[in-house]
Amino acid sequence: MARNIQSLERAAAMLRLLAGGERRLGLSEVASALGLAKGTAHGILRTLQAEGFVEQDPASGRYQLGAELLRLGNSYLDVHELRARALVWTDDLARSSGESVYVGVLHQQGVLIMHHVFRPDDSRQVLEVGAMQPLHSTALGKVLSAFDPVAHTEAVDGERTAFTPRTVTTAAGFEELLDLARARGWASDMEETWDGVASVAAPIFDRRRMPVGAVGVTGAVERVCKDGEVRSELVAAVRDCARSVSRDLGAGRF
Amino acid sequence: MARNIQSLERAAAMLRLLAGGERRLGLSEVASALGLAKGTAHGILRTLQAEGFVEQDPASGRYQLGAELLRLGNSYLDVHELRARALVWTDDLARSSGESVYVGVLHQQGVLIMHHVFRPDDSRQVLEVGAMQPLHSTALGKVLSAFDPVAHTEAVDGERTAFTPRTVTTAAGFEELLDLARARGWASDMEETWDGVASVAAPIFDRRRMPVGAVGVTGAVERVCKDGEVRSELVAAVRDCARSVSRDLGAGRF
Repeated sequence: MARNIQSLERAAAMLRLLAGGERRLGLSEVASALGLAKGTAHGILRTLQAEGFVEQDPASGRYQLGAELLRLGNSYLDVHELRARALVWTDDLARSSGESVYVGVLHQQGVLIMHHVFRPDDSRQVLEVGAMQPLHSTALGKVLSAFDPVAHTEAVDGERTAFTPRTVTTAAGFEELLDLARARGWASDMEETWDGVASVAAPIFDRRRMPVGAVGVTGAVERVCKDGEVRSELVAAVRDCARSVSRDLGAGRF
Repeated sequence: MARNIQSLERAAAMLRLLAGGERRLGLSEVASALGLAKGTAHGILRTLQAEGFVEQDPASGRYQLGAELLRLGNSYLDVHELRARALVWTDDLARSSGESVYVGVLHQQGVLIMHHVFRPDDSRQVLEVGAMQPLHSTALGKVLSAFDPVAHTEAVDGERTAFTPRTVTTAAGFEELLDLARARGWASDMEETWDGVASVAAPIFDRRRMPVGAVGVTGAVERVCKDGEVRSELVAAVRDCARSVSRDLGAGRF
């Protein structure tokens, strides 16, 4: 099998490096983090800069991610069928539930937020499109892990960090959660990722009945839950939304 | 001077190709659009796919942009100081003006929208972060062209498409608009880009007094204008916002 192109792999590693941790790095830091000679790293950085993928601060000489990534990320959203189909249904779900709505897909070892509808009140909220959520503790992540074998492998092989005292971190406990999600057709997160925050999510299927994403609502545990369980009308609304989007993607009714 | 890395330049050209026009392309189309041999194009596409920058539709075999671009684009926003500084001030501007607020920066031959605050009503609105606007006809674009020499060159050298009968397309007419913007310290767009839509914008400066972006409000011409001019209280609110963000970025008061 043909080999992948090394300079491209190195460029991608640089962008990932600049996307995490420090985020503004000098040439020496980039080179040593990736185990490259300074001349090699500089050639890649200079090309990435010429293409708009990296910017260099004129004062400090440090590198950071470039604006072209934002433009391309937006184009990615435009072309994504799941997001296009979800727009109207998720607006309805936010309105009927009164909570924030998220659509997520499996990406690398987590859930990438493709679409986010703000909670319909006047509170200040930060858009989380493009942000990542963990697979093992969120409702979206559990749904993907339960229904998508690739997500399952990532979640089982990955680290299961305890974000709160309620996060399930053992392999056996996690599999139990997934069995429950498969049996019910939905999953919840009751203060397992953020204290005080609960969510509920359901899977979205395409015309080949493949799980292509998940949709869920997230809000204060006092509003989302009642007597230690997710309110059943919220579960119903989320599952209705997931079914509608799936139907729009061509999934069969049965 | 050292040469840039050819495989990286080709990979960037592929991503730009997939970001525009058709957006889902087969191998032959990608290769012929970029004048590459199919084997060469395939090696680059395969590497981009392995890194998450490109996805291949299993059914059709066609390529499209990948999710990693969305994640990196979001990281770019997180690291961008202008956007971070603008968050609070633009929320206030949307509230006081009752209109949509945009923050834009020069990117390639246009204005890249970095931040977008929805009009504070319950209407359905589409987030435009990552979208591009033309330099020659929008309020944001005129402000950047008037105050940033690089933007000026791009706007003068670029094509000035007539989007509406009111778009100014001649070089002399455009320079007049920019002179006016410099004299006033702000620019407007009265149905020059979209019929029925008007906007007003002002420049944002950093600590070195360089124009790093622009902020503006956009809305129905009936609300934004009065007697054929932008309402002066809107102009004042936009300029106040631009000054506040500039101050937060370290620009001097005088």
